[in-house]
Amino acid sequence: MSADIVPLPRKQLPSIEPMLSLTANGMNAVNAVILERMQSEIPLIPRLAGYLISGGGKRLRPMLTLAGAALVGYEGTRHHKLAAAVEFIHTATLLHDDVVDGSELRRGKAAANIIFGNPATVLVGDFLFSRAFELMTEDGSLKVLRILSNASAVIAEGEVSQLTAQRQIETSEERYLHIIGAKTAALFAAASQISAVVAECGEEQERALEDYGRNLGVAFQLVDDAIDYDSDAAEMGKDPGDDFREGKMTLPVILAYARGSEDERKFWKDAIMGHRTSEADLAHAIELMARHNAVHDTRERARHFAQRAIDAISIFPDSKARQAMAEAAQFAVARGY
Amino acid sequence: MSADIVPLPRKQLPSIEPMLSLTANGMNAVNAVILERMQSEIPLIPRLAGYLISGGGKRLRPMLTLAGAALVGYEGTRHHKLAAAVEFIHTATLLHDDVVDGSELRRGKAAANIIFGNPATVLVGDFLFSRAFELMTEDGSLKVLRILSNASAVIAEGEVSQLTAQRQIETSEERYLHIIGAKTAALFAAASQISAVVAECGEEQERALEDYGRNLGVAFQLVDDAIDYDSDAAEMGKDPGDDFREGKMTLPVILAYARGSEDERKFWKDAIMGHRTSEADLAHAIELMARHNAVHDTRERARHFAQRAIDAISIFPDSKARQAMAEAAQFAVARGY
Repeated sequence: MSADIVPLPRKQLPSIEPMLSLTANGMNAVNAVILERMQSEIPLIPRLAGYLISGGGKRLRPMLTLAGAALVGYEGTRHHKLAAAVEFIHTATLLHDDVVDGSELRRGKAAANIIFGNPATVLVGDFLFSRAFELMTEDGSLKVLRILSNASAVIAEGEVSQLTAQRQIETSEERYLHIIGAKTAALFAAASQISAVVAECGEEQERALEDYGRNLGVAFQLVDDAIDYDSDAAEMGKDPGDDFREGKMTLPVILAYARGSEDERKFWKDAIMGHRTSEADLAHAIELMARHNAVHDTRERARHFAQRAIDAISIFPDSKARQAMAEAAQFAVARGY
Repeated sequence: MSADIVPLPRKQLPSIEPMLSLTANGMNAVNAVILERMQSEIPLIPRLAGYLISGGGKRLRPMLTLAGAALVGYEGTRHHKLAAAVEFIHTATLLHDDVVDGSELRRGKAAANIIFGNPATVLVGDFLFSRAFELMTEDGSLKVLRILSNASAVIAEGEVSQLTAQRQIETSEERYLHIIGAKTAALFAAASQISAVVAECGEEQERALEDYGRNLGVAFQLVDDAIDYDSDAAEMGKDPGDDFREGKMTLPVILAYARGSEDERKFWKDAIMGHRTSEADLAHAIELMARHNAVHDTRERARHFAQRAIDAISIFPDSKARQAMAEAAQFAVARGY
C-alpha cells in the first residue's frame, strides 16, 4: 500500500492585506493632503518632515480612521483631512521621541535627529503639530478637536510618565499598561473614534470604535515591546535591545523580573540601572526572558487586547470592513513572529 | 540779579503700570486658569511647567488679550481661558527654545532643560501645547482656533527659519524682520486679535488689534535683541552675549556688519561662525556696534514699529485702555535703557 504525501494546508497567517485594500483609495487622498500640508516656505521643514513621512511608515493610525469610516458606511471625504491630522500628530510625537530617546535608528534608517539635529527635529515636530490643528479647524468639528486635543495631552502625559518610570525596576504591570494606554493607545482610540463622529452615527458606535482603537493600540505596543527582545534589527527597523539599554520598563522586563530568582532580580536591577549594556548582557537578558516565558506571555497579553478590539466592533453587522479590521487586530499580534 | 535753580521737571519715562492696572483683575482670573490647567496626575508635569510659569514671566501676551478686551468694551469672561491658552502656547515655545538653544539661563534662573533635562522639557512643552488647544476647544470659537493654530505653525516656521539663518553672516534685515515677525510677532498679533473676535466687534477692529499686536511684537523683539548687546545679565535674565556666542543674526549684528570696514566684516564673519567667543571678543563686538550706532539704530527701528502699533489703535475712541496700550508700546521700546 502506497500513499501520496498530501501536504497539510498551510495555516493561513492573519494579514494586514484586507485592511490595506479596504483603505487604499482613501489613503491616496490622505497622502495627498499630507504631502500638500507639510509644505512650507522654509525648505528645511518639508525636507525634514518628508524624511520621516516618506520613510516607510505604515500610516496605521490614519488607516484606522478610514477603516472606521468604511465600517459605518460614511460616504463623504471629511475624514481625509482628519486622518492626515492624525498622522501629523503621530509624526510630531515620533520626532520628539527621537530627541527624547536619543534614538539612532527609526524605521530602519538613521533617525531624523541624527541627520538634522535635535533643534530642527523639535521645531518641525511643533510645526506638524500646529498643522494638525489647522487641518482640524478647517474641518470645523469641535468634537473632533476635543477628542484629538485631549488625546495629544494624554500622549504627552504618557511620555512623561514613561520617562519617570525609566530605570525604575519597581514599575508594575498596571503602571506600564497605564503608560502605553496613554502614549500609544490614546491616538489609536481617537483615530478610530473620529470616523464615527464625522459620520454622525451615534454614541454607541463611537464608543465601539474608540474601544476597538484603544485595545488595538495596547496590543500593538505590547507586541512592539516584545519584538525589542525577540527580533533582529532589520525586521524591527531599530536597534535590537534599545529598550534594554535605555532601561525602559516594558512588560517583558516586568514579567522576567517578577518571576525571577533573587540572582536574576539582581541582574535586572543592574541592567535597568544601566550597568549591563553589553551584547552578552542583552543575550543573558533574552535567555532569562525565555526561561520565564516573558516575551511569549507579553504576546499573550497582546492577544487578549486584540480579542477585546475585535469584540468591540461586533456590534456592527458583518462586512468586509469589519473582517478587515478584525484581521488587522490579529495581524498586530502576529507581527514579528 | 539772582535766580533760584529750578529743577527741570524730570521727563516721565513710559511705564507698563497703566497696562498692569488695566488688566490686574483679569490677570487674576487668567492666572487661576493657568494654575488649574497645568495640573496633571503625572507630578513632573506641573513641577516643570510651574518652574517656568511661576518664574517671573511678565505674561505680556495674555495681557494683550485682556487689554484688547478692555479696549473694545467686552464684558464677558471667555477671554480668560483664551488668554491662558496663549500663555500656554508661549510657555511651550519657551521650553522648546531652551532645548533648541541649549540655554542655561532663562528669566534670571537656570533654564528648565538644565534642571529637568531635555526630554522632560520637550514633552512638557508638548503637554502645554495640547492643553492650549483643549482650552480653545472648550471655548468653542473656530475662528479663534484658526487664528491660534495658524499662529502656532507660523511660530514654528519662524524658529526653523531662525535656525537656518544661524551662523549665516549674509542674513539680510528683510529676512531678519520676517523671522521675528513669525517667531515673536505672530503670537502678539493673535493674542490681541482674539479679544476682538470674542467681542464680535467687526473686521476693522479685529484688524486694528492684530496690527497693534504684530507691530508691538516686532518692536519688542528688536529691543530684546538690542538688550543682548547693551545690558547686563541681571537685567535681562539671560547670559549677556548669548546671541553673539550662538551666532544669531540679529539686527545689531546685521547693521554693524553692513556698516563695517573690511576688517570689521572679517571679525563679524569669524564671530558669527563661532570662532570668536571670548569675553574680549564680545567687548570688541560691542565696541564695533557703538562705532556704527548698531544698537541705537536697532532701538530706533523698534520705535518705528511701536509707533505703528500706537497708530493702529487710533481708530478706537480715546480711553484709559487705549492710553495704557499706547504707553505699553512706548515702554517696550524704552526697556533696558
